[in-house]
Formats: sequence, C-alpha cells, structure tokens
Amino acid sequence: MENIVGGAAGILTSVSMIPQLIKVLKEKNVEDLSAGMLIVLISGLSLWVWYGIMKTEWPIILSNAFAVMVNLWLGICLIIYRK
Amino acid sequence: MENIVGGAAGILTSVSMIPQLIKVLKEKNVEDLSAGMLIVLISGLSLWVWYGIMKTEWPIILSNAFAVMVNLWLGICLIIYRK
Repeated sequence: MENIVGGAAGILTSVSMIPQLIKVLKEKNVEDLSAGMLIVLISGLSLWVWYGIMKTEWPIILSNAFAVMVNLWLGICLIIYRK
Repeated sequence: MENIVGGAAGILTSVSMIPQLIKVLKEKNVEDLSAGMLIVLISGLSLWVWYGIMKTEWPIILSNAFAVMVNLWLGICLIIYRK
C-alpha cells in the first residue's frame, strides 16, 4: 500500500516537472531560471535520494533521482542558452 | 542520521520554492504558470504527505505539507491575477 501511494506520488510530482523542461528546450529562454536556486534544489533532491537509499524506499529514490536528472538538464540549458 | 539527511533535504527543496512564490507575488504575473500542472503537482505532493503519514516519516510529511501550501498559494495567485 505504501509503495502504491509513494509510486503514484512520485509519478505525479515527476510528471509535473516535464513541462518546464520542454518549455526551456523549445524556447531556449532561461532568463527566468535562477542558477542559485537550481543548485539549492539539486542539492536538496540529492539528499532525498541519499535519504531514500538509507531507508531503502524505492519511491523516494526513483522520483528524486529523476528530479535530479531533469534539473541537471535545466542547469545545462542555463549554461548553454544564457545571454 | 536519517532524520538529519531528510531534514536537510526537506529544508533545501522547500527553500528552493520560495523565490517562485515571491516572484509571482511581486510581479503579479502568472502567464507562465500552468493550472493543469499545479493541480498535478498539488495532487502528487498531497500523496507524498499521505505516504509520510503511513510511514510516520516527519521529514517527508513536513516538507511536502509545506510544498502543498506554497503551491496552493500559487494556485490562488493564478485565479486572482489571471487576465
């Protein structure tokens, strides 16, 4: 039961991040993205992955690892597309 | 130890959401916010709170409850400031 709720939670919060990435990849406009905040966010998400590993909770590990990847990708866009 | 990592993770991911809220409250511009995505995100975050309650894991409960509040606030801004 916990894994179903956690899995659904992970899928929903992961899916909700995709439009941001698509928007940036399409518009090549990163003006509104803050590098500092991306760094704080990626650090936090990485700690969640660590927390999930310590507790061997797969919903937490998978959804946060996915979120780290999306935000690293946003970070790369920020470097490539900045003016 | 788990609670320290989880607490730090929760604080970092929570802090990273504040600038978005401040930006919206300041600029009163919600053009770039997607209502559908906010609904998906709030549903996912609420499921995380439920997951945390089932496992009695305070870092998960607190950080996701905080995120639900921030995003509900963004949702209210979306309704008030839309053109």
